[in-house]
Amino acid sequence: MPYIALNSAEPGIRGLLRYRPQTARPLSELCEVLLRGPSTLIRGERELIAAYVSALNDCRYCASSHSVCAAAQLPGGMTVVEQVRADPGSAPVSAKVKALLAVAAAVARSGRAVTAGHVAQARSAGASDVEIHDTVLIAATFCMFNRYVDGLATTAPDDPAAYAAGAQRLVAQGYLPPSPDPGRED
Amino acid sequence: MPYIALNSAEPGIRGLLRYRPQTARPLSELCEVLLRGPSTLIRGERELIAAYVSALNDCRYCASSHSVCAAAQLPGGMTVVEQVRADPGSAPVSAKVKALLAVAAAVARSGRAVTAGHVAQARSAGASDVEIHDTVLIAATFCMFNRYVDGLATTAPDDPAAYAAGAQRLVAQGYLPPSPDPGRED
Repeated sequence: MPYIALNSAEPGIRGLLRYRPQTARPLSELCEVLLRGPSTLIRGERELIAAYVSALNDCRYCASSHSVCAAAQLPGGMTVVEQVRADPGSAPVSAKVKALLAVAAAVARSGRAVTAGHVAQARSAGASDVEIHDTVLIAATFCMFNRYVDGLATTAPDDPAAYAAGAQRLVAQGYLPPSPDPGRED
Repeated sequence: MPYIALNSAEPGIRGLLRYRPQTARPLSELCEVLLRGPSTLIRGERELIAAYVSALNDCRYCASSHSVCAAAQLPGGMTVVEQVRADPGSAPVSAKVKALLAVAAAVARSGRAVTAGHVAQARSAGASDVEIHDTVLIAATFCMFNRYVDGLATTAPDDPAAYAAGAQRLVAQGYLPPSPDPGRED
């Protein structure tokens, strides 16, 4: 039961976005750019970072939701996502993704926990500066979302089917809400 | 020295916003709405939460910058900001602000660290649901910014005057960048 009276029964971040549309807009746009915008990291890799950080932060709603999004867009599907969540070092992902996951895990602890060694490892595995930047920002962004979702004690469904439906919509349509006014340019 | 090659010598978040305008836009809009948009919390109180969380996260750039922003918009100025950073429980702020700072400190630890007791305390001191919501989201947002700024090892000036100039601009003009000049490339 959430700590504040929301205006819908939607679980997790969905109820919070509905409650406060003023902050929902930039939060949704940030997700759209980071997780789905143009990038040399495929969408599944970016969702994997989001799912992994959310699991490290013990945020059940976000970890479940983004695991499904990652699985739908990653070769290997949920098997690989579960292996990464259990032990990224031995999971069947590229050396570059492994190194970026290590950067993300450091970010989850603290910004100051990211070392020059983490970054050098990612770079030597082929990561570009923009990929390193985006990994840090994706990890930091989910440190925000996880705290927002759990800090207000939003609900997290037990039924995996609840996450599957939401993830299917995100994979197909993205994070932006339907445009309220198609004539408006911004 | 930042871990990645930025395209300006600007310190802290400023260099990162310049480097990646696609993410800068929603990040700036989020700050504008949360810290300066319509609210029953005055701007100085919201900046105080940002400064306090940034100090807890040991992010020198963000803590310095938002302390100056808070001081400029809060009765009591920097003296009160420094007292809050040292010990919010004994600082000369209202019981409501004290309770909201305790919520923010819990968020900085983890979303799951926020208890029904923290929220009940805030409510009994007069905080509304929206104020509790915004406090959680401001604290979570600065857990993101602090990790972004320090996770990429951006620079933080030693000279307090550097923060004063930036804060003066933020207090006067806000967080949104000036509308882009179509003739300018950057």
